[in-house]
Parts: sequence; structure tokens; C-alpha cells
Amino acid sequence: MTQAACRPALNGVDVPTLFATLDAVKSAPEIADFQFRARNTWVSGAHNRTVIQGFYGAGQEDTSRTEPFTYDADHPAVLVGGGHAPTPVEFLLHAIAACLTSGLANIAAARGVTLHRVESTVEGDIDLLGILGLSDEVRNGYQQIRVSFVINGDARPEELTALVEQSRRRSAVWDVLTNGTDVVIDVSTP
Amino acid sequence: MTQAACRPALNGVDVPTLFATLDAVKSAPEIADFQFRARNTWVSGAHNRTVIQGFYGAGQEDTSRTEPFTYDADHPAVLVGGGHAPTPVEFLLHAIAACLTSGLANIAAARGVTLHRVESTVEGDIDLLGILGLSDEVRNGYQQIRVSFVINGDARPEELTALVEQSRRRSAVWDVLTNGTDVVIDVSTP
Repeated sequence: MTQAACRPALNGVDVPTLFATLDAVKSAPEIADFQFRARNTWVSGAHNRTVIQGFYGAGQEDTSRTEPFTYDADHPAVLVGGGHAPTPVEFLLHAIAACLTSGLANIAAARGVTLHRVESTVEGDIDLLGILGLSDEVRNGYQQIRVSFVINGDARPEELTALVEQSRRRSAVWDVLTNGTDVVIDVSTP
Repeated sequence: MTQAACRPALNGVDVPTLFATLDAVKSAPEIADFQFRARNTWVSGAHNRTVIQGFYGAGQEDTSRTEPFTYDADHPAVLVGGGHAPTPVEFLLHAIAACLTSGLANIAAARGVTLHRVESTVEGDIDLLGILGLSDEVRNGYQQIRVSFVINGDARPEELTALVEQSRRRSAVWDVLTNGTDVVIDVSTP
């Protein structure tokens, strides 16, 4: 029997394809160059809308997404917004929880660990004196983000905990949120 | 006439309330302490789901959101995911575009500038050799994010451009993405 036949999907992860993908990238590292994209349109006040669909990766434009994904953002009423959607900073909390969880499901599958339940709660503390321009000593962004996982799976507690640690070590969102990255803005006024 | 009567909503922003909110925070800075939250549940494979609803701010638990906001994340098929939703890193692009746009609509209103159109496209370059564990020299996160605004409004081009610059200076998401922040993870395995 091939390895693929021995190790089918685990945790919903197609493990043979996961390893085949790693082998493909090893032999052609340039296919690891990806570009993700979003397009945002102002609606009214703090309310705006982002469409996410295409991206470049694996050497070509992706065509797998036949419908766009659409997400609004807004400020809540207490911050003089319309409350039509979460605030932009709340999407950072979604991003970190999602990235760590996606990664650990893959890592668990690769390690042969069956997961039963993965939940996380995320809290982000922010002092709005920064963004309101009322203090030069308070940063604009989160002062701290805390992610608390609860995991059940067929492995010892230390093995389950190690899944989170390995996911953190390979998390794109963790890297950006903790280390920062280069962000460039340009403006045209046609 | 009061200032409120003279300066009603502009760009959908209730300008008198915006200034009143600033005054309220100046006189009681502790109401600027906010905590945002999210709860994520693993679905299958790289697919997971975040619910966003409650937050603490202005001295109390917010109760304005009577329904939760729900967002999925996944990896695309080319990355062995189910493609049910954008990747976690694409939500970072939504967050930065949304934060800059919300801010500039408020700033424009405060400055008396009527906006007609604000659109932005965001691109993020990422080399997956990092997260795939195939290179120790490639970072896990975005190498660069670029945000390109197109703005029409009743002001000179340099005034419109200055709105983006001021929004950037007061953007919570810009701060986190460019400077990073403290992220703490804990795990329980009940």
C-alpha cells in the first residue's frame, strides 16, 4: 500500500496531498511566491466594505474562487459609527485565531493526532486615547492580545499543547502581529 | 443656532457627536479603555469560524450588537484547504483598508471635507517557504503590504491626500501591522 492509501484525510486534512504539496514546493521553490489582495470601498461614515477574491500563487492566478467574499467594517455607535459590522481591529483577532487554528489542524494531521475540539477566545486591550489623538504616550494599536485555546484530541496534553506552539512558530499572522511588517500607502485623487 | 444645528452629518459622520465624544473622553480618560473580543471554533481541516459580538468600552459592556457577526476562514485548495473562506492573512488586508478608510471619513468630516468616493486596493506579498518550514531565512508573514487609495472629494488633491496621512497617523491597525504588538497564547486541554 502506498502512504497515501494508509493515511487518508485526518481532521479533514488531506494528508497525502499536504505532503505532496510540500514536496512540490521543495522541488520548485518559486511556486511559494503568493500575493493576496483585497479591494475596499467606502460606504458612509466609518462603514466600508471589502471584497476578497483573486490571488496569485503556485505560479498562476488562482481561479478557484468563483464568487467573491465580502466583509463590512464599521465603528460601533459608542464610537460614532453605524454599528453595521465589527471594527477593523476586531478582524485582527479573527485573523490570529484563524491562522493558529488552521495551522494546528494541519500539524495535528501531519503528526497523526486526531482532534475532537479546538476553540479559542481572543481578547485585545486598546486605549483609545491614542487613536483619538488625546495622548502622545498611548499607542494607537492594541497594547496586548491574548489567545486562549481549549483543545481536545487523541494525544497527551503536552502533545496537544505542542501543536499550538508549532502552529505559532509557522503562523503568518502571528509573525505580522508580533514583528510588524512593511506597509506602503499611496494616494491618487483623479 | 447651535454648532450641532450648523454642522449636521457630513460623509455620514455625525460631526457634533464626534466632537462631543472627544470632549467626553477628555474629561474622563478612563472611558477610552476598550477590550475587543472574538471566539473561534475549528470546523474541519483549515476551516474555522469566528464569532464577534461583545466588547467592553466607555466604562461598560457594550449591548448594541443584538446579533453576532460570524466570519469563516480557510485555506484555498492549492494550499490543501477547502476554500470555504479567505485565508487568515487576507483578513489583515481587510483590516488595514477598513481602518484607514473609517478614519479618513471621520477626519474629512471633522475638517469639513465632503467625500464622494474612497476606494482602496491592498496587496500583500508572502513567500510561503516560511510557513511551510522550507526556509529559515524567509519570514512567515507578509514581506510587504501596499495600500493604494483613490479619493474624490470637494477639496484640493493635497487636502485629500492629507486625510489619508492623518488617518494613518491615528490608525490602530496601521500601528499593529507596522510596529507589532504583544500577543500571549495559553492552552488548556481539559
